[in-house]
Amino acid sequence: MATDAMSPKITVELLRQLRQAMRNGKCIAEPIQAYIIPSGDAHQSEYIAPCDCRREFICGFNGSAGTAIVTEQHAALWTDGRYFLQASQQMDNNWTLMKMGLKETLSQEDWLISVLPENSKVGVDPWIIAADQWKNMSKALSSAGHSLVAVQANLIDAIWEDRPARPNTKLIALGLKYTGLTWQDKITALRGKMAERKISWFVVTALDEIAWLFNLRGSDIEYNPVFFAYAIIGISSIKLFVDSKRLVDPAIRQHLELDSPSKPDLTVQCFPYESVFSELNAVCAALAPKDKMWICDKASCALTQVIPKAHRAAIPYTPLCLAKAVKNPTEIQGMKMAHIKDAVALCELFAWLEKEIPKGTVTEISAADKAEELRSQQKDFVGLSFPTISSVGPNGAIIHYRPLPETNRTLSLNEVYLIDSGAQYRDGTTDVTRTVHFGTPSDYEKECFTYVLKGHIAVSAAVFPNGTKGHLLDSFARAALWDSGLDYLHGTGHGVGCFLNVHEGPCGISYKTFADEPLEAGMIVSDEPGYYEDGSFGIRLENVVLVVPAKTKYNYRNRGSLTFEPLTLVPIQLKMINTDLLTQKERDWVNDYHRKCLETIGAEMERQGRKEALDWLIRETQPIV
Amino acid sequence: MATDAMSPKITVELLRQLRQAMRNGKCIAEPIQAYIIPSGDAHQSEYIAPCDCRREFICGFNGSAGTAIVTEQHAALWTDGRYFLQASQQMDNNWTLMKMGLKETLSQEDWLISVLPENSKVGVDPWIIAADQWKNMSKALSSAGHSLVAVQANLIDAIWEDRPARPNTKLIALGLKYTGLTWQDKITALRGKMAERKISWFVVTALDEIAWLFNLRGSDIEYNPVFFAYAIIGISSIKLFVDSKRLVDPAIRQHLELDSPSKPDLTVQCFPYESVFSELNAVCAALAPKDKMWICDKASCALTQVIPKAHRAAIPYTPLCLAKAVKNPTEIQGMKMAHIKDAVALCELFAWLEKEIPKGTVTEISAADKAEELRSQQKDFVGLSFPTISSVGPNGAIIHYRPLPETNRTLSLNEVYLIDSGAQYRDGTTDVTRTVHFGTPSDYEKECFTYVLKGHIAVSAAVFPNGTKGHLLDSFARAALWDSGLDYLHGTGHGVGCFLNVHEGPCGISYKTFADEPLEAGMIVSDEPGYYEDGSFGIRLENVVLVVPAKTKYNYRNRGSLTFEPLTLVPIQLKMINTDLLTQKERDWVNDYHRKCLETIGAEMERQGRKEALDWLIRETQPIV
Repeated sequence: MATDAMSPKITVELLRQLRQAMRNGKCIAEPIQAYIIPSGDAHQSEYIAPCDCRREFICGFNGSAGTAIVTEQHAALWTDGRYFLQASQQMDNNWTLMKMGLKETLSQEDWLISVLPENSKVGVDPWIIAADQWKNMSKALSSAGHSLVAVQANLIDAIWEDRPARPNTKLIALGLKYTGLTWQDKITALRGKMAERKISWFVVTALDEIAWLFNLRGSDIEYNPVFFAYAIIGISSIKLFVDSKRLVDPAIRQHLELDSPSKPDLTVQCFPYESVFSELNAVCAALAPKDKMWICDKASCALTQVIPKAHRAAIPYTPLCLAKAVKNPTEIQGMKMAHIKDAVALCELFAWLEKEIPKGTVTEISAADKAEELRSQQKDFVGLSFPTISSVGPNGAIIHYRPLPETNRTLSLNEVYLIDSGAQYRDGTTDVTRTVHFGTPSDYEKECFTYVLKGHIAVSAAVFPNGTKGHLLDSFARAALWDSGLDYLHGTGHGVGCFLNVHEGPCGISYKTFADEPLEAGMIVSDEPGYYEDGSFGIRLENVVLVVPAKTKYNYRNRGSLTFEPLTLVPIQLKMINTDLLTQKERDWVNDYHRKCLETIGAEMERQGRKEALDWLIRETQPIV
Repeated sequence: MATDAMSPKITVELLRQLRQAMRNGKCIAEPIQAYIIPSGDAHQSEYIAPCDCRREFICGFNGSAGTAIVTEQHAALWTDGRYFLQASQQMDNNWTLMKMGLKETLSQEDWLISVLPENSKVGVDPWIIAADQWKNMSKALSSAGHSLVAVQANLIDAIWEDRPARPNTKLIALGLKYTGLTWQDKITALRGKMAERKISWFVVTALDEIAWLFNLRGSDIEYNPVFFAYAIIGISSIKLFVDSKRLVDPAIRQHLELDSPSKPDLTVQCFPYESVFSELNAVCAALAPKDKMWICDKASCALTQVIPKAHRAAIPYTPLCLAKAVKNPTEIQGMKMAHIKDAVALCELFAWLEKEIPKGTVTEISAADKAEELRSQQKDFVGLSFPTISSVGPNGAIIHYRPLPETNRTLSLNEVYLIDSGAQYRDGTTDVTRTVHFGTPSDYEKECFTYVLKGHIAVSAAVFPNGTKGHLLDSFARAALWDSGLDYLHGTGHGVGCFLNVHEGPCGISYKTFADEPLEAGMIVSDEPGYYEDGSFGIRLENVVLVVPAKTKYNYRNRGSLTFEPLTLVPIQLKMINTDLLTQKERDWVNDYHRKCLETIGAEMERQGRKEALDWLIRETQPIV
C-alpha cells in the first residue's frame, strides 16, 4: 500500500481540492457542506484493494477501521482504540482524531450536527456506505434539519490522479478435499433456507461469502483470498457477476460447469462485474407481488435501494455468513493441519530469534520476513493472512502496528517482543500472537503478562451453555486485568475463516457486539486479550480456538454445553509468567496446553526433520510446578 | 389481587366474549383477527393496579411479565423463564404457553404471521402498548401483509363486568431529610439537561419518575409507592396531571407551593389526570418550528403519537430515570438505614423459625406473615416492596412463587426454604433473598448453593472500569454454575429505587439487557443468582449492592474503577455451603461479609434490645476456616 509511513501525510492541498470538488458543479449537482469518506469498498470489506483506499488517501491513516469526514472548516477521523496512536502519527494537523469508545467523543452524527450550518447537505458515495449506516446517518441528520445525499461520482476518485486499477487476479478452484462440500451442495442448502423463509432471491455482496459459496478463491485483496464479484441466487437461477477474463481458464469453467451444466437450476449465468446494478434492476422489475429478496443490511446503500421496499428483506447476517461460520469436518481438519504447520514455522522462528538476537542484527522487519520465509516452507502455503505485527518495546503498544523502515526497532535482550502473525494455507487460515522476552522481563511486565494469560485461560477454558453469545464471555478475559485497574481497548476475539478472511462474522467475543449470533460447535474464533502500556510495551496472547461440545457433571434442561479447543499450538513463554499469580487450575491448564503442543507439533517437527525447533519446543514446554 | 389461585382459570366463556367483541361493530370500526393484551398499564408500569390486570383477567396468569394474544382460533401467552411453571399452572388448556428465551419459541410477530389469514388486522389498545413495541410489531406485521390497528375502546374492559375502579390514594410529601433535594432543585437540574440538548418540553409518563421528581409518594399500586399522574415539564412551566381530590390536603398544597409559588417558572399548574391527551395536544399545537419534545420510547403509543414527528425526540431512558438511578448522599444514607432495619427483622425471623419449625406449625404463608410483622415493627415502615416469595422444597423452583392457601407447604427440617422479600421504608426500599435449611441439606443442595454463592461473590467482589455496563458482569454470576452444566433462566440484578419501585432502570445485570446505561457510583442494584431444580428445590442468594469507587493497584488511562458494597447485611447460612468448593478469596469474602453483618446489624439489635436475634446473629456469623 502506498502511504504506509508513520510520519503524517501532508493533506493541505488534497483537502483544498476535495473542498473545491464539494462546491463544484462538475462533480455534483448541488454543493455539499460535508463529505463522508468511509473505510470500505463496495462490498463493505474490512481489508480493501489499493484502488479503494480512499480514506487513507485523503487523511494518511491506513488502519483497517476508520471514517473520515470533511467539511468546509473541519476534517475529522473516527477510529477505535486499536488505532489511536497510529492514527495520531499518520495524520497531519489538518485532521482531528475522534477516539471512538471514549465517553467524551461525539458520534459522527452529533459532530456533524454540531459543526454544520443550518440546512446542510452531507454527501457520501452510496456504493461504499452500508445501507444500515446510511439509514442511521440519514435519520440523525434529518432530525437536525440537514440531509444526507448520495453523490454518485466519488469525489476522492475525482482528485486522486494516480489511483490504481481494480485488481483482477487469477481464480483458483478448491476441490472437495478442502471444502467438504461442492458449490452445488451449498447452493442447494442455501435454497433450502430461502424456501423455509419464503425468499425467492438473495443478493450476495460480501466477497468472502461469494468465494465460500462457489469454492473459488482469488487474490484481489492482499491477505484475503477473495475476488471482486457479486452473486444473485434465485430459487432456480444463479447469476455470478465477475470479470469475464477470469472465466477463460478451463479449470474454472469446468469447476463452475459453465460449458456443460449438470442441471438447469444449477447453471451459472455469468455477467460482467459492473452489470450488477442493471441486472438487479431487471430482476426486480420482474418480481411477483409476493417475492421477497434477501440482502444483508451491511450491503451498499446503492444496491440495497435498487430493491423496492416491499420486496426487500434486509437481514443482519446472511445464511451464507452463518453457514460459513460453522466449519464442516473437512474444514475443521484443514484448519487443524494449517495450525500445526503454522506452529512448526513459528517455533522455528523463536528458536532462530534466540540464536540471532544476541548478535544485534534482527529487526522487527527482518523477524517478520523470517516468519514469512519459514511459513512459506510449509505445504499449501499461499501467503500471509494479514500484515505481520512485529513490534519491540514501545511499538508493541500500537495495537495494529506494522513495522516500517522509519520505525523499525532492533530486537534485543532488554525489551518485550510482540508478534501477531498468520498465514493463508489452502487448507486453512491462521492467526497467532505471542509476546516474549529474550532477556529478563521486569516484574511489572511479568505481572501484566500473567493477567493477560489469566484472561486468555478464562475464555479458553470457559464452559457455557449452548445458545450463549460470544459477547457474554468477553468479561472473563478482562477480570484479572480489571482487578488491578488495567484493561485493553479492543475486543477479545473474532471469527476466523477457513482459507478465507482472518476476520469474519457473525460470531466473536467482544463487549461491543450485541447482535452477534450464538456460538455453535464448529465455529472458530480467536481468544486474544492484551495489555498495552503506551510508550513502553505491548502484550497480547492469541490462540485460534474451535468451539466444541463440553461434557459437564450435570446438564440443565438438556441444553448441552460448549467450550473451546485451542487450534493454535505454540508454547506460551514461561519466563513471562509470574506463576505465583496463577491458581492451580490455571497452572494445570498451561501444563496441559504445553503437553499438547509438544505431542502434536513435536510429532510434525520430527516428520519434517526439524531437529533444532524440536529441541526448542521440548525445552519450552517443560511443566511448571 | 383477584385471581391468585395456582389452579387454572377457566377461560372458555371469556374467550368467546372477547372473540365476539373482536368481530363486533359495537366495540370497533372493523373486525380484527387478533387482539394483543399487553401486561402493562398506560404508564408501562411493571406492577399494576387491579383495574389494569387485563392480561391476568383474560388468561389467569398473574406474573409480572407476559403478553397474551387471542386470535379466532388460538390464544397464546408469552412469558419468560421466571414464570414458565407458574403460567402453566394458572392457565387452562385454551392457552398455549410461549416460553420466551428458548430457541424454538416463535416471537409474537412470527407467531402471528404463522397463524393469521392473509391481510389480517391485529388490534391493540394504544394506551397500554409502548411506542417502541408498537413500531416493531407494526413493521413486522406490515412486512407480512397484515396491519396493526389501534383499538381505542379496550376490549377486555368491555367484557370485564366487575372491573375495579382506578385507585386514588392519599399522597404524602417527602421532606429534604429523605430526598436530599427539593423538587424545585430537581426541576432546575432537569431543565439544565433539557437546555443542553435544546429540548423545550418533556412529557413524563413513568409513575416512579413523577413521584421522584415531585418528592411525592402514593399507594395506588400495591408495593409501589406511586400514584397515577402525568407531567409535562417546559422550560418555564410545570403541568401536573393528577386527580384534583388529591390536591385538597394542605400539606400537599404547601409542598407543591400551589397557593403561593415562589417563582413563576416553578409554579405547578394542576390538571385532571384524564386531560393529559387534550392538554398535550394543545401544547403541541403551540410549538415553535424548532421546538423539540422529549418522550420515552417506552411511553404509550397513544400519547407518543400526539407529538408530531418533527417535534418528537424519543429517548430510551429519560434524564429523570438516569438522575433517579444515581442516589444522592441522603438517599444512600436512607437506603443503608432501611437495610439495617430490614436485616434486624429478617434475622429475627430466622431465629424465630428455628424455634418454631420443629413444632410443625409454620407454613409458607405464616412465615411470610411473620416476616411482615417483624418488618412492620421497624421505624418508618410503610409496607412490603413486593409479594413475599416464601417457598419450601419444590415451590422454591417456581421463581416468582407466592404462597397461596392451596399451595401452602409446611416448613420442615427436611426441605430447603427460600424467602425473597423486601419492604418499603420512608428512607429506602429493600429486597433480599436467603435460602436456608433447618435440618441437614443434601450434598447436592449444598453443591448447587455453593455454585450460586460463588456467582454472587463473583459479582459482588468484581472490580470493573468506569463506564462498564452491567450486562458485562452477568456471566461472572454464572461461571461456577456453567462449569457444572447448570444455569438459571433470569437476569442477575435489577436497579432498586429509594422508597420507590423495587425494580427500576436504567441499569441492571442481565444477559438480556444491551441498551443499559453504564454503572456509576451511587447506583444501587441487586445481585441475585440462583439455581432451580424443577420439582425439588430452589436456591437464590440476593443482596442489594451499592456501586462504589474501587481502589486498584493501577489506574489504566485514569479511567477509575468501581465495585459493589453490599447494603443487605443478613448472614448467609454456613450449613448450606460446601466450603471445599470455595477458593480462599471466596472464604475471605464470606468471613468479611459476616463480620460486617455482626458489627452493623449487631449494633442495631443491641440498640433495639433484640437479644434473641443478636444471639442468633453471633452464632450465624462465625468465621469459616
